[in-house]
Amino acid sequence: MQTSNLLNISKFVAPEVIFGFGALSQIGESAVRLGMKKAFLVSDQGVIEAGWAEKAIEYLKEVGIDSNIWCGLTTNPKDCEVAEGARLYLASDCNGIIAVGGGSPIDVAKAIAILATNGGQIKDYEGVNKISSPLPPMVIVPTTGGSGAEVSQFSMIVEKARQVKMAIISKSLVPDIAIVDPLTLQTKSARLTAATGVDALSHAIEAYVSLAATPLTDVHALSAIQLVSANLRESVACRTNLEAKSAMAMASLQAGLAFSNAILGATHAMTHQVDGLLDLHHGETNGILLPYVMEFNLISCVNKFANIAAALGVQTAGLSKWKAAEKGISSVRRFFRDIGIPERLSQVGMKEEHVQKLSLNALKDACLVTNPRDAGAEEIEALYLRAL
Amino acid sequence: MQTSNLLNISKFVAPEVIFGFGALSQIGESAVRLGMKKAFLVSDQGVIEAGWAEKAIEYLKEVGIDSNIWCGLTTNPKDCEVAEGARLYLASDCNGIIAVGGGSPIDVAKAIAILATNGGQIKDYEGVNKISSPLPPMVIVPTTGGSGAEVSQFSMIVEKARQVKMAIISKSLVPDIAIVDPLTLQTKSARLTAATGVDALSHAIEAYVSLAATPLTDVHALSAIQLVSANLRESVACRTNLEAKSAMAMASLQAGLAFSNAILGATHAMTHQVDGLLDLHHGETNGILLPYVMEFNLISCVNKFANIAAALGVQTAGLSKWKAAEKGISSVRRFFRDIGIPERLSQVGMKEEHVQKLSLNALKDACLVTNPRDAGAEEIEALYLRAL
Ligand SMILES: [Fe+2]
Ligand SMILES: [Fe+2]
Repeated sequence: MQTSNLLNISKFVAPEVIFGFGALSQIGESAVRLGMKKAFLVSDQGVIEAGWAEKAIEYLKEVGIDSNIWCGLTTNPKDCEVAEGARLYLASDCNGIIAVGGGSPIDVAKAIAILATNGGQIKDYEGVNKISSPLPPMVIVPTTGGSGAEVSQFSMIVEKARQVKMAIISKSLVPDIAIVDPLTLQTKSARLTAATGVDALSHAIEAYVSLAATPLTDVHALSAIQLVSANLRESVACRTNLEAKSAMAMASLQAGLAFSNAILGATHAMTHQVDGLLDLHHGETNGILLPYVMEFNLISCVNKFANIAAALGVQTAGLSKWKAAEKGISSVRRFFRDIGIPERLSQVGMKEEHVQKLSLNALKDACLVTNPRDAGAEEIEALYLRAL
Repeated sequence: MQTSNLLNISKFVAPEVIFGFGALSQIGESAVRLGMKKAFLVSDQGVIEAGWAEKAIEYLKEVGIDSNIWCGLTTNPKDCEVAEGARLYLASDCNGIIAVGGGSPIDVAKAIAILATNGGQIKDYEGVNKISSPLPPMVIVPTTGGSGAEVSQFSMIVEKARQVKMAIISKSLVPDIAIVDPLTLQTKSARLTAATGVDALSHAIEAYVSLAATPLTDVHALSAIQLVSANLRESVACRTNLEAKSAMAMASLQAGLAFSNAILGATHAMTHQVDGLLDLHHGETNGILLPYVMEFNLISCVNKFANIAAALGVQTAGLSKWKAAEKGISSVRRFFRDIGIPERLSQVGMKEEHVQKLSLNALKDACLVTNPRDAGAEEIEALYLRAL
């Protein structure tokens, strides 16, 4: 164990996890166990078209639970959407919240849960531990494998007026039960599969080098890195490769357990600002920024980066830690190229004129606190420019 | 991932964990968060003498929580002790249960919690999922590092009349909060340190080869094996080696997360019967039986045993899986000899005349179900005789 871990008191929180092909069938029993009588089911159009929301509603009906389905949200969900969802929840007779979908519906479901019992506006809860009253019971079924929101203490909501993605972080946001059914990953497009997989890898790498990492988060982070590097290409290549889908669902879950408890770093702090401004896929932006941030962070913990390289499948035998770590970073670049992740922020619409404002906002992001290398405005600006 | 894991729906449950030097200081805030007004504190004489129970009581008092301390239990705690504890809990005005101590007080605290809200006798709950009503809030502070009971779904109670150690297994037995403070491990004797460390290693190895193992349990099992093999000798050698104590506390916790969710195997099924009969230290009995059971289980999953060998620090490069696995088993024998674990059951008072009865009882133990190799009466008898 590392000496740094000897000096801190750390906390680890995880929901009950139900994992496996067909696990969605456990949603009724789970909701009953939590005392739900009527569920407010948050989803999105894609998931509804794929049939997963309907399946969930049927399983709930089988155990006598009615549900109100709602999907009034967009990618990088906005504060006004959360307010509308909360209004509908409170106006209904629902006594529990279920999300079936990707990171966006899950984040919105958590945000509605906050407003349901704590009132106010969602921006009141930006930052760490701002929630005081217990939330309604929550069951989360992720269907995109990447966000890790099914197990995390995070909800990310865009404040429209400021064009900023707010990080809301609290133990209360860990759902009661996460149901992970890899079958649901079959209906994703190749592009979304790639982006969400890159998001999971970013979670795992950032959590592993985080200042708040512990042995409990490290094992999940390294396992997630191994699983992504061994399965994401195959998962992108073929929609029905069930072994790859299952491995990616597990990777996302483990990366979620890691970053929920170890928090993230500069990649996410910088990506959140781009998300807020340009409404891109979070995973693709992470993919562009991650290799640059890894290069920047390298001098803070070369041993950890050498372990990351080994977990990525790089042959590190006989190499110095430095050489191994550097090979790890190149292998990430090669990996992302294989699955079609863009390489520069300019390709996705970012301009030099954005850099200053985004850098200032990134400095305020809660994820920057645990980045292993100190980064001020100058360093963040330089990183954005390098990735432009 | 292994194909076997693709076919099952698995569940994973963990308490909130607070870990680190001085973590005991979080006990007051934890009890408040769970709504405790007055705590029923289960401990044992050794822990009280070491001062840990008193410290806990002081921290609770600081936040306005009174406590009734009770320690009317013995090693391998008995059903009658549980009944007495439950009677006292119900006669008091306590509304929550705290354990500060080793595996025995923790198991008793859980058993008292069962009777407190579910009534009846503790033997009514033997086996899997027999608990129906929710338990009072529970905070667990382990002070011996080994049992993993601070995170597990298990409580082991001896039914005196039958001389059998009953396994009570239920998600409800996972406490709300586990507080792991490695400082508490400094007051243990070398012999107890060795025995509890061997218990943790047995948990990790049995969970890793268990039929119910999943990727979520595997990472914790392998990490626990690494930590024990790298730190237990040092921890036995020196009471104040804080790095070794911290690593062993983490190992016990991770082994607990693994076996709580993957269950155990033949070693524990057989040890429980010896515990019931002879009132020995559970960890020493496990230590005697484990290498024999590993030899027996080898043909069921040689790859896993080769991974265990690597985690134990055996040089496996260039070896066949078989050779590596066998070297792993020899290294366990050597390891246990180094720390003074007895090698034969006859040394601790078991006789050939006991074998038949213990074998029949072992067949009924819930832990045998997940052993990776089928074992009937004949195989269990042969294993007891080999270890005699
Ligand atoms: Fe992310
Ligand atoms: Fe044990």
